[in-house]
Amino acid sequence: MRKLALSLCLATSLNVAASQESHNIIMVVADGMGPAFTTGYRYFNDDKSTEQVEQTIFDKYQIGSASTYPAPVSGYVTDSAAGATALSTGIKSYNGAIAVDVNKQPIETVLERAKSYGMKTGAVVTSQVNHATPASYIVHNEHRRNYNDIADSYFIDRIEGQFKFDVLLGGGWLYFIRDERNLVEEFKQENVQYIDKYQQLSSLKKGKSAIGLFAEKGLPWALDDKNPHRLSALTNTATKLLDNSHGYFLLIEASQVDWAGHANDIASAMAEMDDLAKTMELLEGYVANNPNTTVILTADHSTGGLTLAAKGKYVWQPDILKLQKHSAEAITKQLITNEISPSLTNQLFNFELTKQEVNDLIIAKLKSEEQIAIYNALSSEQKKSAKKPRPNRIVGKAVTHIIDTRTNTGWTSGGHTAIDVPVIALGKHAEMFAGHQDNTDIAKKVFKLLEQYRQH
Amino acid sequence: MRKLALSLCLATSLNVAASQESHNIIMVVADGMGPAFTTGYRYFNDDKSTEQVEQTIFDKYQIGSASTYPAPVSGYVTDSAAGATALSTGIKSYNGAIAVDVNKQPIETVLERAKSYGMKTGAVVTSQVNHATPASYIVHNEHRRNYNDIADSYFIDRIEGQFKFDVLLGGGWLYFIRDERNLVEEFKQENVQYIDKYQQLSSLKKGKSAIGLFAEKGLPWALDDKNPHRLSALTNTATKLLDNSHGYFLLIEASQVDWAGHANDIASAMAEMDDLAKTMELLEGYVANNPNTTVILTADHSTGGLTLAAKGKYVWQPDILKLQKHSAEAITKQLITNEISPSLTNQLFNFELTKQEVNDLIIAKLKSEEQIAIYNALSSEQKKSAKKPRPNRIVGKAVTHIIDTRTNTGWTSGGHTAIDVPVIALGKHAEMFAGHQDNTDIAKKVFKLLEQYRQH
Repeated sequence: MRKLALSLCLATSLNVAASQESHNIIMVVADGMGPAFTTGYRYFNDDKSTEQVEQTIFDKYQIGSASTYPAPVSGYVTDSAAGATALSTGIKSYNGAIAVDVNKQPIETVLERAKSYGMKTGAVVTSQVNHATPASYIVHNEHRRNYNDIADSYFIDRIEGQFKFDVLLGGGWLYFIRDERNLVEEFKQENVQYIDKYQQLSSLKKGKSAIGLFAEKGLPWALDDKNPHRLSALTNTATKLLDNSHGYFLLIEASQVDWAGHANDIASAMAEMDDLAKTMELLEGYVANNPNTTVILTADHSTGGLTLAAKGKYVWQPDILKLQKHSAEAITKQLITNEISPSLTNQLFNFELTKQEVNDLIIAKLKSEEQIAIYNALSSEQKKSAKKPRPNRIVGKAVTHIIDTRTNTGWTSGGHTAIDVPVIALGKHAEMFAGHQDNTDIAKKVFKLLEQYRQH
Repeated sequence: MRKLALSLCLATSLNVAASQESHNIIMVVADGMGPAFTTGYRYFNDDKSTEQVEQTIFDKYQIGSASTYPAPVSGYVTDSAAGATALSTGIKSYNGAIAVDVNKQPIETVLERAKSYGMKTGAVVTSQVNHATPASYIVHNEHRRNYNDIADSYFIDRIEGQFKFDVLLGGGWLYFIRDERNLVEEFKQENVQYIDKYQQLSSLKKGKSAIGLFAEKGLPWALDDKNPHRLSALTNTATKLLDNSHGYFLLIEASQVDWAGHANDIASAMAEMDDLAKTMELLEGYVANNPNTTVILTADHSTGGLTLAAKGKYVWQPDILKLQKHSAEAITKQLITNEISPSLTNQLFNFELTKQEVNDLIIAKLKSEEQIAIYNALSSEQKKSAKKPRPNRIVGKAVTHIIDTRTNTGWTSGGHTAIDVPVIALGKHAEMFAGHQDNTDIAKKVFKLLEQYRQH
C-alpha cells in the first residue's frame, strides 16, 4: 500500500521534472537520536499540571522509520561516518568512511549535487564543523579522524570554482587556525566572512559566504552554553543567509545528542533534544512562510543503549532532569576541583542529595585520587605499561549514577546500537519520507527532489 | 500533511457509513515488541550469503508508531493490562486494569462492539487465554491477576444471549478445569466445541463456537514447542472458522515476545518474532484473498530494555541465535537436573562452548546448590524470614549471559520500558494507522471502522 503510494508520488515528480520553481531542502540529522530519545523527550516535556501528555514537535511530524546498518564489512551497527555517508550519498560504506565507498572512492553527495545545480548550500552543527556528519555531506576522506585533512578539503575542494558551502556554522577553530596553516585567513582572503562569537551572528551579510566557528572543538553542551538553544539560533541565521531565488540545501546536525548518549548523561540528552525541538519549531514557522521547503529529520543511529526504565521497575521519572543547569561533565569537573560538601552538590545538581548520594560522590573521588597516587608513585619505566587513571571517569560515573537512579534510566553501552531510528518530515513533499525505509533511501529521495527542481 | 490525509480519510469513511459490505478486522498485539525486536528480527533473519539485508514482513508494512503510557496514576511505563485496555477501549487506565477505567468501571471494547453489531469474534494467543491482553478485549476486571474470575466471566458474560467470542485458542486449561468448577464442561453443555491438542484443529466445525486450550497455562516457548510456528497454525484455523457474511473481529496475540523480554532470552525473543512473522505472512496471503480485511499489528510496550549492541562494542551478532533449539528456560532445567559436561552443553546450545563458558555454568550451578544447602539447613522458624533460593535463576542468568556475550545483546530490565512501539498495517484502510499516534487512537480508529461497516 505504502510502496504503491510512493511509486505514484515519484511518478508525479517525474512529470513535473526540471521545474523552474525554486525549492529548499533542510536535512536535519540528530546524531544518536534513537526512538528512546524522542519518546523520552515527550515525557521530559510533559506538563504534569495537565491530565494529558503534551504532543511534541517530533510526535506531530513523525511519519516513518529508517534502518541504519552500514556496509556488510562493518556488521549491523553503524558509526556516524558510515551513517552520514548513507544519508548524504545513498551508498552504504564502512564505519569511518567520509562520503567514500567501500573501495575508498569518493561518492557525490546531495549537498554537492545541490551546489552543482546552482543552489546555495550550508551546514549548521553543534560539533566541530569538520566532524563526521557535516564532513560526509561536504568532502570525501577515507577516515573521519583526519580532521586537519578534512578542514583543508573545505578550502581546497571547489565546485565550478566556488567553495562547496555558502554557510558553515559550528565549532572547531582548532582545526582551522593551526600552527602550520591558517585556513580562516585563507578563507578571508577569498572574501569569506568569519565570526567566532554568537553575538556576531547578526553582523553576517547576505550574498557573501560565511563561516562561524564558536568553539575550539564542539560547542559547549546545551546545559553549559550561555545559550542552551544555540542550534536554533544558528539555524535561524543560516536560513536567512541562504534564502535565494535558486533554492538551497542546508544540513543541520544536533551533534551532541550522540555525545550525551556516549556519556550516558540523560540530563544533557534531554537538553540537546530540547534545543533540537526549538530548532524544529523554528523550521515549522519557516515552512509556513516558505512553503517551497522540505524539512527531513532523522538520526544516523541510536547511542548509549538508552532505555526509559530499568532494573525491573515500571517507572521513568524525568522530573529532576528539568532542574539540571550543568552537564554531567561540568558537575564532575567541579567535584574534582572543589571539596565535596552538601552545599556544593545541592548547588551543582539543583536538588537536595541524600547523605548516601553525597557519600557516594566522596568515595568515587577518593578512589580516583588513590588511583592517581598509585600511578604517580610508579617509575617512568613502569608508567609506560600502566594505564593512566582518568579521574573524571570514576567521578563522572558516580554523577550519572545518581541521575540514572533517581530517574530509573537504563544504558547498555558507551557506544552505538542497531535499533531503527525515527523519520520526521514537514513541508512540501514530506509524504515521500513516510513509512519504513533504509537510510540510503532518504538520500535517494533527496536526489530525486533536487532533480525535480533543477534549474540548470 | 499526515494529519490532513487522515482527516480526509475519516471524512470519506463517514460518507459511506452504514455500508452493507462485510468487513474483517484482525488486531495483532505483539506483547512487548518494542522497536529493538522488529529491528533485531531483520538482522536475525538476514541471509548472509547475499549482499543486501533482506526486508522483513514487518519492514514491508510498518507505517507508524504509537506511544504507550498508561493513565497518570501509573506514570509513563505501562503494563500489559493498561496497554491492552488502551488498545481495546481507547481509554487510558491504571496498570493492572482489564477493560475498566481508573474508577474500575467497565468500558466497552472493540470486540464487544463488533459482537453487538452481529460480527463474529475471536482471540488467538500463545499465553493462557485469560491473560491480560485477551482478557482486556473480552471481559472486565479490576485486576489482571484474578485469573479464575476472568475465566468465569468468559462463560457468564454474554451479548444478546451469546458468548462474547466464537473462537478462543491458546493455553490455560488450569483456569477452566478447576476443582470447584469445570468451565469446559459448562461450555460443552452450551454447544461449544472443545479441543486440547493441535492435531484436533482440523476437526473444528464452522458455524459452532470453539475453544482450544493446548497447555496448562501459556503454550510452550516457540523454541520448545513441537510446532515452533504454533501462532500461525492457530491463526489459520481461526480465520477459517470466523469467515462469515457479517465480517469478524479477531484478536491475535504473540504473547511470549514479552515473556522472552522478561527472561532476557534473546534466542526465544527471535523465535517468537519468527512465529509472528509467519503469522503476518499468512495474513498477507489472507488479505490478498479477502481484500475486505484490515490487519493492524502493534505492541502494548517494549520489554527488557533490549538493545542491539552493548558495552561500547559496535557489534550485534545474531548468527548463533538461529542455531538455538531450546529456550533458556529449557536449557537451564537440563543443566540443573544433569551433570554439566561439554557434550551436554554443546548439545543444549547447539554450538561448541569454550572451556570458560562451561566452567561459568558449573560455577553458577555450584553457587545455587550452595544456596539451597544453606537454606535447607535453616530451622523451620528461620526459613520463615529467609528467601527461598531459586536455582533456575542463577543458572538461568549464566545461560543468557553466554548468549548475550556471544551476540553482544544488552538488557536493562526484567520489566517494561516506555519507548514508543511500531505500528504495522496492511489490507483495507491500512493508511488510517499511518504516522505517529497514541495507543488509544488505534482503538478509536477500529471503532470508526466498525461503525463504517455496521450491518445492524
